[in-house]
Amino acid sequence: MPLHAKSADGERLAVHTMTTKPLSLAEAAEAYASRGIGGISVWVETLAGLTNSAAKQIIDDAGLKVPALVRGGFFCAANEHDRQERVDHNRRLIETAAALEAEMLVLVVGALPGQPLDVQRGWVRDGIEGLLAEAQSSGVKLAIEPLHPMYAADKSCINRITEARQICEAIDDAQVGVAVDVYHVWWDPELSDEIRRLGETNRIFGFHLCDWRVPTRDLLTDRALMGDGCIDIAGIRGEVEAAGFEGWNEVEIFSEEHWASDQGEYLDKIVERYRTATSAAGH
Amino acid sequence: MPLHAKSADGERLAVHTMTTKPLSLAEAAEAYASRGIGGISVWVETLAGLTNSAAKQIIDDAGLKVPALVRGGFFCAANEHDRQERVDHNRRLIETAAALEAEMLVLVVGALPGQPLDVQRGWVRDGIEGLLAEAQSSGVKLAIEPLHPMYAADKSCINRITEARQICEAIDDAQVGVAVDVYHVWWDPELSDEIRRLGETNRIFGFHLCDWRVPTRDLLTDRALMGDGCIDIAGIRGEVEAAGFEGWNEVEIFSEEHWASDQGEYLDKIVERYRTATSAAGH
Repeated sequence: MPLHAKSADGERLAVHTMTTKPLSLAEAAEAYASRGIGGISVWVETLAGLTNSAAKQIIDDAGLKVPALVRGGFFCAANEHDRQERVDHNRRLIETAAALEAEMLVLVVGALPGQPLDVQRGWVRDGIEGLLAEAQSSGVKLAIEPLHPMYAADKSCINRITEARQICEAIDDAQVGVAVDVYHVWWDPELSDEIRRLGETNRIFGFHLCDWRVPTRDLLTDRALMGDGCIDIAGIRGEVEAAGFEGWNEVEIFSEEHWASDQGEYLDKIVERYRTATSAAGH
Repeated sequence: MPLHAKSADGERLAVHTMTTKPLSLAEAAEAYASRGIGGISVWVETLAGLTNSAAKQIIDDAGLKVPALVRGGFFCAANEHDRQERVDHNRRLIETAAALEAEMLVLVVGALPGQPLDVQRGWVRDGIEGLLAEAQSSGVKLAIEPLHPMYAADKSCINRITEARQICEAIDDAQVGVAVDVYHVWWDPELSDEIRRLGETNRIFGFHLCDWRVPTRDLLTDRALMGDGCIDIAGIRGEVEAAGFEGWNEVEIFSEEHWASDQGEYLDKIVERYRTATSAAGH
């Protein structure tokens, strides 16, 4: 398959910079664009040493769009003062997202080990409400990303779409929705129902792709390339699209194995697998 | 604290032989009994090389009771023939459980990577129904143990109490219930409701204790001793008991770290932590 072949499909394909962690923003932008990948979701880590305007220039020069700035959130802290600091930090991230013309800021909401998860979800709601004015004025959407229950202790007190949706409904603002990552939600018996419910109120903001390796050797950095795991990605994508989602398909893979490989060849595989392993048409 | 102090509390304490994996059945039985631990839940692996009657003699000599034989289940296989073999294997495990006078056989239900989880849960229901006659005639209960969603790919297609309860309700037999392991269910936003629902039909058969280490370094063998992690064990135990559970508190910890330690000292700690970190009275 020619690397430079653009397709209608490829134009909905985005890659998270953390997927190709060894690449700088400039290297990633060039490598993505040259393969017909239309979007780059930018991790804050990839911006280190760059001004927002320099980063924006790199992305524009490559002709890429920015689905998301990743990651804000982490609202859970032991006291009011620290929680306010987290909100302030997110306020600055919204500014960065706006400078990059990112559609959304992805919120990984955080968790404080040993604290009741429902209490923590209250902090998350408070934190997001504290950001609404900035989200509205900047046009940057806020996307709550539920993380897999194996991260409930210390990374996210929101572990199903259900709880993310409930917070969205409680806040009831068009700027607040959900990023659905197949890795985190594929196991949920209520997944189909929840995707449908999110769709009814246009709250699917982001859709993230990777796969669940069998066996998974590490809790954090052993995600698989689409097609190399057990997730019915095409099925979930079909449901998300049936629910009205028309946004980017964002490839987000943390993998020591893939980070250690040639990143150009890896991106070729990502493009191929996006075509062959993420939609019913690819089969 | 004297090692040999028996207490009303200690008499409800049981330990899974896999918790002290380096010990033989005879070593484990002696070590548990000498510390006032009243129950031993026997893993099939610990029976290797022993006849059922020899194992029973060892357990009787130590004056221990057997809450559970661990583990049956693994009903999920690609074809009818293989699934029937799994059922037959469970039938033999029920015989072993009866020989040991175990209250229940714990069912880890299995999973087949890439197959729809709801389809697999149908296989599980079929498999358990195929064992009802033996469960009834032997008096051995069948306890479905939901496993954490991080095991959904290849170990268990039942990842919440909800789905275990639904299968119990569909089968509707007093011999079929649930083993609640805090490690697997602590994160579930519906945990309290589900424990209450299980209690209403007397379907809490087993209650397993350990803790969730922060950070967890391995998906399988990095469970923590009660009090060394983030789970509100006392809170969950209180709910289970409020729901009418009067059975054993079974300590089930897989931990390379603890297996590498002195098992006698480790059991002393288990007894101490059972008293101090698993009930509101211990605080």
